[in-house]
Amino acid sequence: MGQFIVLQESILAVVDGIKQAIDNAADIMVVSHVSPDGDAIGSITAMGLMLQQMGKRPRLICDDEVPARFRYLPLASQVQIPPPPTMPDLIIALDCGDESRMGKAFADLPEPKPPVINIDHHVTNTRFGLINLVDTSANATVEILYDLLPGLGVTLGQPLAECLLTGLVTDTLGFRTNGVTPHTLRAAATLIEAGADLNDITQKALTVKPLANLQLWRIGLNNMKFQDGFLWSTLPFEDQKTIGYMSASSSGLVNMLGDIEQAAIGAVLQQVEDGRVMVSLRCRPPFDVSMLAANLGGGGHPLAAGCSLEMSLVEAERLVVGLAIQTIREQRRQLRLNGNR
Amino acid sequence: MGQFIVLQESILAVVDGIKQAIDNAADIMVVSHVSPDGDAIGSITAMGLMLQQMGKRPRLICDDEVPARFRYLPLASQVQIPPPPTMPDLIIALDCGDESRMGKAFADLPEPKPPVINIDHHVTNTRFGLINLVDTSANATVEILYDLLPGLGVTLGQPLAECLLTGLVTDTLGFRTNGVTPHTLRAAATLIEAGADLNDITQKALTVKPLANLQLWRIGLNNMKFQDGFLWSTLPFEDQKTIGYMSASSSGLVNMLGDIEQAAIGAVLQQVEDGRVMVSLRCRPPFDVSMLAANLGGGGHPLAAGCSLEMSLVEAERLVVGLAIQTIREQRRQLRLNGNR
Repeated sequence: MGQFIVLQESILAVVDGIKQAIDNAADIMVVSHVSPDGDAIGSITAMGLMLQQMGKRPRLICDDEVPARFRYLPLASQVQIPPPPTMPDLIIALDCGDESRMGKAFADLPEPKPPVINIDHHVTNTRFGLINLVDTSANATVEILYDLLPGLGVTLGQPLAECLLTGLVTDTLGFRTNGVTPHTLRAAATLIEAGADLNDITQKALTVKPLANLQLWRIGLNNMKFQDGFLWSTLPFEDQKTIGYMSASSSGLVNMLGDIEQAAIGAVLQQVEDGRVMVSLRCRPPFDVSMLAANLGGGGHPLAAGCSLEMSLVEAERLVVGLAIQTIREQRRQLRLNGNR
Repeated sequence: MGQFIVLQESILAVVDGIKQAIDNAADIMVVSHVSPDGDAIGSITAMGLMLQQMGKRPRLICDDEVPARFRYLPLASQVQIPPPPTMPDLIIALDCGDESRMGKAFADLPEPKPPVINIDHHVTNTRFGLINLVDTSANATVEILYDLLPGLGVTLGQPLAECLLTGLVTDTLGFRTNGVTPHTLRAAATLIEAGADLNDITQKALTVKPLANLQLWRIGLNNMKFQDGFLWSTLPFEDQKTIGYMSASSSGLVNMLGDIEQAAIGAVLQQVEDGRVMVSLRCRPPFDVSMLAANLGGGGHPLAAGCSLEMSLVEAERLVVGLAIQTIREQRRQLRLNGNR
């Protein structure tokens, strides 16, 4: 790797490089990250359709199964779990911040590994590819693929539009995240015109949930507590066992807690099977949970962060509540000093 | 009224008529509907700013107070409850399907009433104005106002963009409703470029909720029942009294129930203070709740409908559950006949 120096500032050269690499490859493996989300599956299937239009027969690989909610996507049934039967001569890695995110699909390939085209939007991206198209201003990897279409000479049809819009809708939580730009919305408009059904995709990929979710949220709301601007809930493992907890997600619950006007910070402490406690933290500006998560040994973004604690649920709750209330008090004092509120 | 015949098909003539009527008026009253939502307040304040730019000093009137969540809007503090002190010589009615929606603001004016410009997007609009600009393909009344800007010679600044984007975001539930078009998304993109903060507006106007909401949802989830594809919940008035129920809304709860994959139809039966039971119904395509609501003496849309029942909560539950399960069975049979699922 690293034989060529690709000038990141010269986006046209990068796109040309991608096109040449694809044109010259006979066996292309398209990979995204383990535990795939809508942008991962949307990107893999979109790139699959793009390469087919370019006359290729790509292999679509992901370490984990395509989640049921994304099986409506074209080519979703062709996404395979590794190992691929033969060594590819080009890898296109999508939505992966570093090589390890590809999981066994990459790790199990013998050395020397084939060259990698790295297309991603994460700020933490390590530029691990031979060619790196990393646009951290993009809201999703599919947004980069959308911008790439003219350069690759690919036309936008309904199946491709569905894949791209799925990634846009899921990574922006339906245009609700912080970085949504006019460009994102105009891309979505063009994808609808190409035949993608925004309402249908939003339902299938984002809002429709299993009944077990509501049963999990019921446990959460029954354990909800509020003190000094901190709104939190605990999900003991024993209670989760009584419902079909394996298919349930607590992310909607912590988003609900973070959206409560009286709450400066919202949190869910979910005890998992091995006894650890997974802590999710949410807030709205001007508050910031990234330092709180770091102080608890975790990490994340200013408005959404988390950590994992190796202790009992009672101990974890005592620790998190103490630190969260202290964080709120300090940030409120700082905001008063700055005259913000 | 009705002295002039306005050709609805000639949109330019309508816009010209609106501009002339505004230019010729000295005292303009801008009104929206009782129990105002984000599109009502967004429309009133947007029209206020537009008229100010046109050299007018409009009076902004609404029968009910501006809800706290919309007080961030420019001019929101200038929206007054009626009666207005003097008789206006022009009324601009926004987002009102018929005259009665204006409430006392219109009803209490002496006869003969001043001429009305009726700008609205509801399919049920009765064309009650002297000039009617009714576009049922628009997702919100603010979308019509946005389209009206060039014709009125008004330029888009940041305050106006905030008002317009607030109406777009609330009436489409953040671009999640059925009719969102490429035009809606491109309008939102232009409003962001003019300085409106989509993320901030989505939080303030749409997603941030009082703590009492979660307490109401907790009651709802604890009373949740599921049978033969029908997922429903009851909210007894006694239970609501224990929380600050006046500030809580059950609309988020019924949306959650309607979004559950195992549910063909979701419903909430909320007992209110006078003893009536307000029934909200939700479904996803290919199901349809409008006939079910009509059979219960109510009405609404295919995917969201409701009714009000004058009986005990136990009786209402028995009635609704029976009819809902029958509806699901019939629609499933019909769908099988059509080969849909």
